Amino acid sequence: MQTPYETTVRVRYAETDRMGVAYYATHLIWFEIGRAEMFRQMGFCYREMEEQDDTYAVVAEAHCRYLRPARYDDLLRIRTRLLEARTRTLRFGYEIVHGETGELIAVGETLHVLCDRTGRPRALPEKYRRFFPLTAPEAATGCS
Amino acid sequence: MQTPYETTVRVRYAETDRMGVAYYATHLIWFEIGRAEMFRQMGFCYREMEEQDDTYAVVAEAHCRYLRPARYDDLLRIRTRLLEARTRTLRFGYEIVHGETGELIAVGETLHVLCDRTGRPRALPEKYRRFFPLTAPEAATGCS
Amino acid sequence: MQTPYETTVRVRYAETDRMGVAYYATHLIWFEIGRAEMFRQMGFCYREMEEQDDTYAVVAEAHCRYLRPARYDDLLRIRTRLLEARTRTLRFGYEIVHGETGELIAVGETLHVLCDRTGRPRALPEKYRRFFPLTAPEAATGCS
Amino acid sequence: MQTPYETTVRVRYAETDRMGVAYYATHLIWFEIGRAEMFRQMGFCYREMEEQDDTYAVVAEAHCRYLRPARYDDLLRIRTRLLEARTRTLRFGYEIVHGETGELIAVGETLHVLCDRTGRPRALPEKYRRFFPLTAPEAATGCS
Repeated sequence: MQTPYETTVRVRYAETDRMGVAYYATHLIWFEIGRAEMFRQMGFCYREMEEQDDTYAVVAEAHCRYLRPARYDDLLRIRTRLLEARTRTLRFGYEIVHGETGELIAVGETLHVLCDRTGRPRALPEKYRRFFPLTAPEAATGCS
Repeated sequence: MQTPYETTVRVRYAETDRMGVAYYATHLIWFEIGRAEMFRQMGFCYREMEEQDDTYAVVAEAHCRYLRPARYDDLLRIRTRLLEARTRTLRFGYEIVHGETGELIAVGETLHVLCDRTGRPRALPEKYRRFFPLTAPEAATGCS
Repeated sequence: MQTPYETTVRVRYAETDRMGVAYYATHLIWFEIGRAEMFRQMGFCYREMEEQDDTYAVVAEAHCRYLRPARYDDLLRIRTRLLEARTRTLRFGYEIVHGETGELIAVGETLHVLCDRTGRPRALPEKYRRFFPLTAPEAATGCS
Repeated sequence: MQTPYETTVRVRYAETDRMGVAYYATHLIWFEIGRAEMFRQMGFCYREMEEQDDTYAVVAEAHCRYLRPARYDDLLRIRTRLLEARTRTLRFGYEIVHGETGELIAVGETLHVLCDRTGRPRALPEKYRRFFPLTAPEAATGCS
């Protein structure tokens, strides 16, 4: 399995809830940051993919398992990897671990459909193909 | 299958992103509202469950499939139903449909572990049992 | 002084922080809702003002005084009024009061510059003039 | 005037709205980050101030002027400085500038009342006094 790309975030006060821990929708925002920083480390900018190449990675599915709470001011490591690349879809996997203890806080996945500005599915532009080599024969169906 | 409980939300400007649609983490907030209003319609207040009965429905897992975008100012119907009740866990299912067109915008599930203030798993207090009759034999394991 | 337009919101779990109260940026989201519902009660939709009339009420300034905490599941009343209308700017005032006790939770103001899609200031389209009659001579400067 | 403490944030997709820019409540979250990182650079942790010293900097007032839009993926510098320290209140000032162009995006202020866990105002604990030397004679009133 591919080594994950890693970035860090610190839990904001705004992200906590009255249980004293990060609210459960926050983890999906952290996944977004994991993807954006993965792309930057790979050598391109997601913003440019949208603005210059009219390609939007629209989220079709998201899943998260919450294993331990993240608390205010905790430094977290977000580990992101590509799980699957098809002509029109990309799937990413995430692990969020505590920066100091290394304990696993959450794991998740997102599935994205590539679309143009109008929301119509499109193939990944050629220039991004090397970053996301197809991982499965197109014949295969029923992505997990 | 049980009739779902229903409540409505209107998409806030704050919830949209630069793609012009509701950001994908927002749907989990709508699920939270679906649960809270389901409980209120059933006859109790989740806030009291926390404050008076020291019972917190901690999210252990969340899943969402995004079928159509939700746009600013759209009125949405959130349909929530109990999918599974065990001694220490509850599972809910959600459908978000467009208030006017009735089109399905998203479907999802959340799994909750009942905990006390300190985060220790606990059984659902007796007074809430009638709202969540056990749906599966305790012997069964490996919830989906 | 003009009677305020009123709408209600219920404090979401997502909006609380680990202090157990609504996070301070949330009140600005409630102000946004106050404005949108004021417009709807007046007889038009802010969404259409953007989409059909290319007029965006861009926030230039926001101010909030926090008098009492808002807590999870509290029902709040948002009272919104127009404070000032000029050719290219609108200023609104807000009061957030507790739905049951009537206690004042927060007061605030926002100043908006009317812009077109490209961010260039523009005058309010004629069709909206009756909703926002000019409240001050254009000669006056230095809005508070 | 004291040199400001500085930290950086990158605009998240979640923070943008359908106008394509950072939503106006987001700036208050960035102010929070500015304060927390200012404290860390000064030599203490706000989290510990809450947890070990039962001192909460409750926001009593917030103000922001928005000068230029912040866009997705922009790197921003948050410059935070102490404007005023009294026995029971602290006031901070903020400037948000674009990381590359240096253009001023927003300026703001927040006023905080020091409280204990129960929300009762309290004096700043002795150990934090050196970080926040009193800036005004207690006799003075009517903070701006």
